[in-house]
Amino acid sequence: MSLLAVGTVAFDDIETPWGRAEMAIGGAATYITLAASHFLNDLRLVSVIGDDFPQDMLSFMRQRGINLEGLQVKENEKSFFWAGRYHNNMNSRDTLDTQLNVLATFDPVLPESYKDTEYLMLGNLTPAVQLRVIEQMNKRPKLIALDTMNFWMDIAWDSLMEVLGKIDMLIINDEEARQLSGEHSLVKAAHKIHALGPRFLVIKKGEHGALLFEGDKLFFAPALPLQEVIDPTGAGDTFAGGFMGYIAKTEDISFENMKRAIIYGSAMASFCVEQFSVEALKSLNAAQINERVQRFVELVNFDLVMEI
Amino acid sequence: MSLLAVGTVAFDDIETPWGRAEMAIGGAATYITLAASHFLNDLRLVSVIGDDFPQDMLSFMRQRGINLEGLQVKENEKSFFWAGRYHNNMNSRDTLDTQLNVLATFDPVLPESYKDTEYLMLGNLTPAVQLRVIEQMNKRPKLIALDTMNFWMDIAWDSLMEVLGKIDMLIINDEEARQLSGEHSLVKAAHKIHALGPRFLVIKKGEHGALLFEGDKLFFAPALPLQEVIDPTGAGDTFAGGFMGYIAKTEDISFENMKRAIIYGSAMASFCVEQFSVEALKSLNAAQINERVQRFVELVNFDLVMEI
Repeated sequence: MSLLAVGTVAFDDIETPWGRAEMAIGGAATYITLAASHFLNDLRLVSVIGDDFPQDMLSFMRQRGINLEGLQVKENEKSFFWAGRYHNNMNSRDTLDTQLNVLATFDPVLPESYKDTEYLMLGNLTPAVQLRVIEQMNKRPKLIALDTMNFWMDIAWDSLMEVLGKIDMLIINDEEARQLSGEHSLVKAAHKIHALGPRFLVIKKGEHGALLFEGDKLFFAPALPLQEVIDPTGAGDTFAGGFMGYIAKTEDISFENMKRAIIYGSAMASFCVEQFSVEALKSLNAAQINERVQRFVELVNFDLVMEI
Repeated sequence: MSLLAVGTVAFDDIETPWGRAEMAIGGAATYITLAASHFLNDLRLVSVIGDDFPQDMLSFMRQRGINLEGLQVKENEKSFFWAGRYHNNMNSRDTLDTQLNVLATFDPVLPESYKDTEYLMLGNLTPAVQLRVIEQMNKRPKLIALDTMNFWMDIAWDSLMEVLGKIDMLIINDEEARQLSGEHSLVKAAHKIHALGPRFLVIKKGEHGALLFEGDKLFFAPALPLQEVIDPTGAGDTFAGGFMGYIAKTEDISFENMKRAIIYGSAMASFCVEQFSVEALKSLNAAQINERVQRFVELVNFDLVMEI
């Protein structure tokens, strides 16, 4: 079971009430692959960086089993950069700066060895770039999941609709689901989004958990209540990476197995937010992940003993 | 098993994006007792109304097994009145008008027959009035639960602290928990609130569910995702009524049983918001409640099949 992740590999400047990090390692594909690397050892990445990206991070990613053949390195150019400041409640943030740099001209090229990858996670990027990736696959992946954002709904509606027609699962947050569907009720939003193409829909609600929809089937996983959230950056991508990593590892896209994958994704995200940048994902082991998944079981488990 | 509910019995004017209701039946004790009446038939109510409150509603409450001996009726006075307008997202509202009327001079008097009630739910009222109720009990109830609001934290801190020292369980929303504790993290807030007295704490998060804390034990119940929320008024009181009704019915205040009670409370609240005022609570039956509780089971149930 192989997983291909496409998305940014980048730098972030992050300010939270707890502190700040400058030129921290970030990017959707970085979080997705590092999270998934705890489940799989056949991971492939398509992205673009400048020659400013640290070699030791690339070495670490290779050590984690992440194939970087599809990572383009542009000489004398800079990697994508984002700067943001989180508000006190950690649920909202302001973008202070965005420098596209290498991303401005990114044309994804899939190495031949990637073209039969079984599971595909398209991180948030221009829908046209996401389409270009799907078009290059030799074989239809068993599951194509995609993340997107409000920005593309505003400026690239047509190509977003086109790519939504070609995927199996959309993973977005509640605000994005509402904008995409024009519905406030997430149940109604899900019906409309299914009609756009994706058979599966995950709506992420940050600290309020995540919902999985497949037609009329519905599953909810909470976020783990934490003592402290240090840095929410990358939590959604880490969730997606944990989810897709578990799905690819188990090779089972039934609704029952997707529920488990949602719990593993939520567990990975709960680690992510406890430290700045990708730090938490670098030092994790399987025992810690299993122990944390057990906390989710305890958090929601109850036994009915009778009817009223 | 007997349950005493203390709180307002009142009128509400409600505006939501779906419509409006004028002089609708409302009040915390109304919602609490009607919800609990689906679990118990020994229900007692302490409140005050004017002579404007409809007799047919009082007759209906008596039919539901609610003892109204503790309901004071003030001749030539008006019942408590609240008017509010919900915003589009239904999670926030503006108070347009509050007329205390009979509530301004409310002095709760417990009939002798109420003074050995086993379970006590103190709806949101002046902490001094809540204290007066506890003082009149002959026997310490098996469980005293209390609701309060930011307003009392602002203007009646000392008497709020006093009553918190005399109860077992506090049931408040996330914003109130944050104000009461001075902590944004609900996990940290819970530790501080336990230290104020209550052994059990329920933090309601509206459409995002509810958390139950007892020391380091933690349980989360989602709210049921609904096609439409018509009127959120009374949802928190309905939750509390369902919770306390189930606890009093089962006479078991273990953490395991409280989890079940949280699910029943959440199920009752999910009915409440589907119609204006108390309408949904009037026509429910046990089969509908059991069916809805089963939807909560399906919503959160998952089976781990292996460790990673």
